Amino acid sequence: MLGQTDVLLWWGHLAHDEVRDEVVERVYDRVMEGMGLIVLHSGHFSRIFKRLMGTTCDLKWREGNDRERLWVVSPGHPIVEGVGEYIQLEHEEMYGEHFDIPAPDTLVFISWFTGGEVFRSGACYERGRGKIFYFRPGHETHPTYHHPDVQRVLRNAVHWAAPTVRSTPRAFGHAQPLEGAGS
Amino acid sequence: MLGQTDVLLWWGHLAHDEVRDEVVERVYDRVMEGMGLIVLHSGHFSRIFKRLMGTTCDLKWREGNDRERLWVVSPGHPIVEGVGEYIQLEHEEMYGEHFDIPAPDTLVFISWFTGGEVFRSGACYERGRGKIFYFRPGHETHPTYHHPDVQRVLRNAVHWAAPTVRSTPRAFGHAQPLEGAGS
Amino acid sequence: MLGQTDVLLWWGHLAHDEVRDEVVERVYDRVMEGMGLIVLHSGHFSRIFKRLMGTTCDLKWREGNDRERLWVVSPGHPIVEGVGEYIQLEHEEMYGEHFDIPAPDTLVFISWFTGGEVFRSGACYERGRGKIFYFRPGHETHPTYHHPDVQRVLRNAVHWAAPTVRSTPRAFGHAQPLEGAGS
Amino acid sequence: MLGQTDVLLWWGHLAHDEVRDEVVERVYDRVMEGMGLIVLHSGHFSRIFKRLMGTTCDLKWREGNDRERLWVVSPGHPIVEGVGEYIQLEHEEMYGEHFDIPAPDTLVFISWFTGGEVFRSGACYERGRGKIFYFRPGHETHPTYHHPDVQRVLRNAVHWAAPTVRSTPRAFGHAQPLEGAGS
Repeated sequence: MLGQTDVLLWWGHLAHDEVRDEVVERVYDRVMEGMGLIVLHSGHFSRIFKRLMGTTCDLKWREGNDRERLWVVSPGHPIVEGVGEYIQLEHEEMYGEHFDIPAPDTLVFISWFTGGEVFRSGACYERGRGKIFYFRPGHETHPTYHHPDVQRVLRNAVHWAAPTVRSTPRAFGHAQPLEGAGS
Repeated sequence: MLGQTDVLLWWGHLAHDEVRDEVVERVYDRVMEGMGLIVLHSGHFSRIFKRLMGTTCDLKWREGNDRERLWVVSPGHPIVEGVGEYIQLEHEEMYGEHFDIPAPDTLVFISWFTGGEVFRSGACYERGRGKIFYFRPGHETHPTYHHPDVQRVLRNAVHWAAPTVRSTPRAFGHAQPLEGAGS
Repeated sequence: MLGQTDVLLWWGHLAHDEVRDEVVERVYDRVMEGMGLIVLHSGHFSRIFKRLMGTTCDLKWREGNDRERLWVVSPGHPIVEGVGEYIQLEHEEMYGEHFDIPAPDTLVFISWFTGGEVFRSGACYERGRGKIFYFRPGHETHPTYHHPDVQRVLRNAVHWAAPTVRSTPRAFGHAQPLEGAGS
Repeated sequence: MLGQTDVLLWWGHLAHDEVRDEVVERVYDRVMEGMGLIVLHSGHFSRIFKRLMGTTCDLKWREGNDRERLWVVSPGHPIVEGVGEYIQLEHEEMYGEHFDIPAPDTLVFISWFTGGEVFRSGACYERGRGKIFYFRPGHETHPTYHHPDVQRVLRNAVHWAAPTVRSTPRAFGHAQPLEGAGS
């Protein structure tokens, strides 16, 4: 199944530690080979995301009455096709900086929260041959995934993260010179 | 015409200075609005590329007997779809570092040359809403543009650089608060 | 004078267009050679900053009653030495996204504003041999430059932007092969 | 000891797997808190480097008769203070692309090898509060570490990677709003 998956979406909350080592390693191997991975909201603390980022992926949070406004800061990126200047969510859990991730290869969204915080809410990475997109919103008590722009971003992200097919497999190890006698 | 162009390819050599200010500014304005721009080989010294980069775009060069090998360093990028580990060109003009450009948003190719030089040969940038790809090879005395992988890269680059359609136009200037009394 | 300057701080507001071409080009040349440049607040619209960025550097703004909170997102960067998690300014002019700049080489601060906006408030760039830091706050009607953390950031930025002395000058143009017969 | 270390240099070759989990985690924790880490040559396969990168860190290699020339591509970076356009090493082990690392935050050196390969030889990363520099050369059978420019780069890298002291500790978890009633 995983071997035939082009793009995997990962949402999880409390049970991250119940995901077994071998599952983490199989997803990791597939990302290295080119599978796309979209990590949603509390998935920031999934074992696979921490494995791929190399940092703690920790952050600040609050379940309260925050409004969230996700501002586009990478206005030509395919992930924001059809989206306006920002996406506004009337009620969301707050995630605040510092978010302990590597600097994204491309930062697509920055969130504003009522309580005074900001957050890097849409972050693209290449790891191995795989493309990874972290997208912040999506708390289970709010209707976030019914918002048309959130759905649009997820659709766009799936297209963006689709594998790039190459004509040769990943190759490492001992290598003969390509130049030299007679070349 | 330019107003209907999605992606513009720019090759030029000796006559860069004959391109008038108003042409440079019209292309520039279109890139800001989202038009893709693919700059080829000696186009590194075009007025539009220097205008968009903000640096001199100068480099080292030699017309000699160099072989060029363009190594892929961003293996999941859509521009290398269908390409192997490297593209080998038996005869090309050498371009060598230091290439005076901003660090690319994504570096896709690094070239090796017989004479001992390296070069950042495939470089992606976002500027305004536009996507820009600089691709090094393409000297007029060599059959570079007949090479199937070079053609593949150019096709891929055109797709990659296609405009991202947004639901709102670029907006700047004085702004009313989005939060506040009654919000 | 400019020839002996290590780091230049640039603040300007209404008179950007009165800065002559030759002044812009002299500062530009010095940045290419390694001079540091720190661009403050409304200096985002200076001719030299636009020249170096290659984009319009436009943004949203409002003189109102906004509080600003600059969150650190690059927590090991020398520019935030001695600074806490954020810098809070009780009254500042609002600058909002989209800020039409290239993606920073390093993004150091993101601002939150009362009115619902965010802004990339501390942005590092390398251009030529020069280092550039854009720092957002500093409206002339507010006591921003008296804030100890703002002063600390400016001091740190001057140290960060100091020229890197190299053992050879910038070199471009025709180049003999480094490898070949007898090498 | 590790608790008092500002910058740790890591060289290892065959015995990476003998480094125990708890050592890896202690070094990792210290990097998150701000300790600098300089990873040398075959240290690319150390457990701590792979842990921090989140990728396989695999590459191509060859012990042969290659000459290596490390070209500077980030000419204003403090790590190349005092260095010329390139560093030439008459005999070195070859490491070739694809090098399976995240795109560096800053790419400082690109190597040319006689056999036709290139390599991203100097790569800077921020992870947590720590700064990491990977520097490629340094095979045990060659006099690389006696080369004055290699020594200069290592000295510069130690200074660059020194911890940034902040006025507040790393803080994550549940957060009260900074704005709201009475603020």
